[in-house]
Amino acid sequence: MTERTNRQLLLARRPVGDVADSDFELRVEPVAPLDEGQLLIRNLWLSFDPTQRGWLNPVESYVPPVAIGEVMRASGVGQVVESRHPGFVPGEFVSGLFGWQDWVVSNGMTAMGPVQKVPAGIDPKAVLGVFGVTGVTAYFGMLDLGQPTPGCTVLVSGAAGATGSVAGQVAKIKGAGRVIGIAGGADKCAWLVERGGFDAAIDYKSDDVEARIRAEAPNGVDVFFDNVGGPILEAALNNLAMRARVVLCGGISSYNAVELPPGPRNYMQLVIMRARMEGFIVIDYLDRWAEAVGALAVWVHDGLIHYEEDIQEGLEHAPATLRRLFEGRNLGKQLLKITDPPII
Amino acid sequence: MTERTNRQLLLARRPVGDVADSDFELRVEPVAPLDEGQLLIRNLWLSFDPTQRGWLNPVESYVPPVAIGEVMRASGVGQVVESRHPGFVPGEFVSGLFGWQDWVVSNGMTAMGPVQKVPAGIDPKAVLGVFGVTGVTAYFGMLDLGQPTPGCTVLVSGAAGATGSVAGQVAKIKGAGRVIGIAGGADKCAWLVERGGFDAAIDYKSDDVEARIRAEAPNGVDVFFDNVGGPILEAALNNLAMRARVVLCGGISSYNAVELPPGPRNYMQLVIMRARMEGFIVIDYLDRWAEAVGALAVWVHDGLIHYEEDIQEGLEHAPATLRRLFEGRNLGKQLLKITDPPII
Repeated sequence: MTERTNRQLLLARRPVGDVADSDFELRVEPVAPLDEGQLLIRNLWLSFDPTQRGWLNPVESYVPPVAIGEVMRASGVGQVVESRHPGFVPGEFVSGLFGWQDWVVSNGMTAMGPVQKVPAGIDPKAVLGVFGVTGVTAYFGMLDLGQPTPGCTVLVSGAAGATGSVAGQVAKIKGAGRVIGIAGGADKCAWLVERGGFDAAIDYKSDDVEARIRAEAPNGVDVFFDNVGGPILEAALNNLAMRARVVLCGGISSYNAVELPPGPRNYMQLVIMRARMEGFIVIDYLDRWAEAVGALAVWVHDGLIHYEEDIQEGLEHAPATLRRLFEGRNLGKQLLKITDPPII
Repeated sequence: MTERTNRQLLLARRPVGDVADSDFELRVEPVAPLDEGQLLIRNLWLSFDPTQRGWLNPVESYVPPVAIGEVMRASGVGQVVESRHPGFVPGEFVSGLFGWQDWVVSNGMTAMGPVQKVPAGIDPKAVLGVFGVTGVTAYFGMLDLGQPTPGCTVLVSGAAGATGSVAGQVAKIKGAGRVIGIAGGADKCAWLVERGGFDAAIDYKSDDVEARIRAEAPNGVDVFFDNVGGPILEAALNNLAMRARVVLCGGISSYNAVELPPGPRNYMQLVIMRARMEGFIVIDYLDRWAEAVGALAVWVHDGLIHYEEDIQEGLEHAPATLRRLFEGRNLGKQLLKITDPPII
């Protein structure tokens, strides 16, 4: 048997502001032989999500923070290489919270849930995106909270990201009359309109966002799906339609802040417009996961949902890949490839 | 016929910050004889509500602003003195948007709705408070948006005001397990617990509000009925229970602000706690008004709801009476008596 070496990136200290390479430390150790009931997974792709930044703060949120000295927590997709577990055989693609490391030895569970098999017939890494947390988040956030009605006007921030891009397309599928995306840069805006089927795109880097929202949604915004917060949230609140729904999915503009920035000073627009602002977390929808993935799979198959992946390479680039999200550099799902599959 | 003189307080200029006496100007003119179809009302009590401050800003909100040179808009209760209108007879008590003036000549309508007859058997001025806008606001805000469930924990800010005091009592009637009020000063806090039936009172002038909320609601707040905004809203958001409802009724802490202060920097607590923040305006409930007044009348009669009135006197003191709301000086409904009834 080949000697296998596991590189792990451990949280060395809590980042202040942007994540730095030096916030993590490399540990290299041999992979131990399997015990009965264990399986060995070669980690292939890592998922990067804005919420991971929050896991690094010393605050109990919807999940406990990553501990100092712990392997950085992240979802991954890998391939089973050896198995002494009755439920897995070598060659299977699996997903779970595999973390920033090359190899995972598991008893079938990770710290926060079971190792899942990737369904047959799909690109394995898609379970980290459109058929995973970001796609399912878009699905339930838009449909359960946003409740788009036929002909309504929907605005999505972070619209070229993994969640926002799917959220806007789901709204369109459900009959929204006008779907407007806010993204950073001409390339992303072009993608939204030409590929994502959005009716309009607003470039927050060059446009007057509030004026553009007013122009693109002259009767107001019925559903605002927010991934960003900050001035974009304020601009949207100033352009709500009566009884609008503001879906709070994320607030990436503040995740790196050392002190929380001011909230939306115009939140009383919710009163004037009899509107609702509501937060959610997709882990509450575990019992309805299959519903979302099933619908998304059909829509992707039918060409109604397009998605993109931004794939970086090399485990050592994980911190820089996390930073890409906050630099707004990714179009679609941010992934990192650790090594090329298949490995067996 | 006696020569009748009408004093009117007109908006002279838009207040900057606090309302000043000099923002209004007095016009004195004789009351014109009635035409066929008109009635003459002696205005007796004026209602003061925080939202009136917003009507003075040059901004179209849920109603148009009061125009410069227009009689200051306010609800009032008066008595019909003469009538050439088939629907009214002298002696009847009536209410409507009578404004800051002694006399009202009407064709049965005011600028924003009909002249209403005060139901028999109640204190006429109560239609400005517990049986009027503030009581009905409390009723629908708490029940339709707050949706208190048996045993739940309810927090009310501005709890000794006309709306907050009723909102808390409505929650208690509907089975809330614990109702906590936030008010300013020992007298108001004593009233909440001893008379209003609140389980606890927090004095924002002397207490650490956030620490007290945490202590009084150790399992979190299920319903927060907010009349205040600002730091009190932030303190409440930091202490939400899962799936909490934040009912945005008002934000008196910012109504006098020349520039809007920062919004709640911790609004992302709505995500972490899967909570909802929703605004409403009671004018959307006109078609259900009788439901609320009927329920409130029974509860007042049965001693389940107590209410207070703070009655200032003299039309010339109207601006100062409006200021009392923002100085936090009123316990219960802020009224001003123009003259003693009955006048015929």
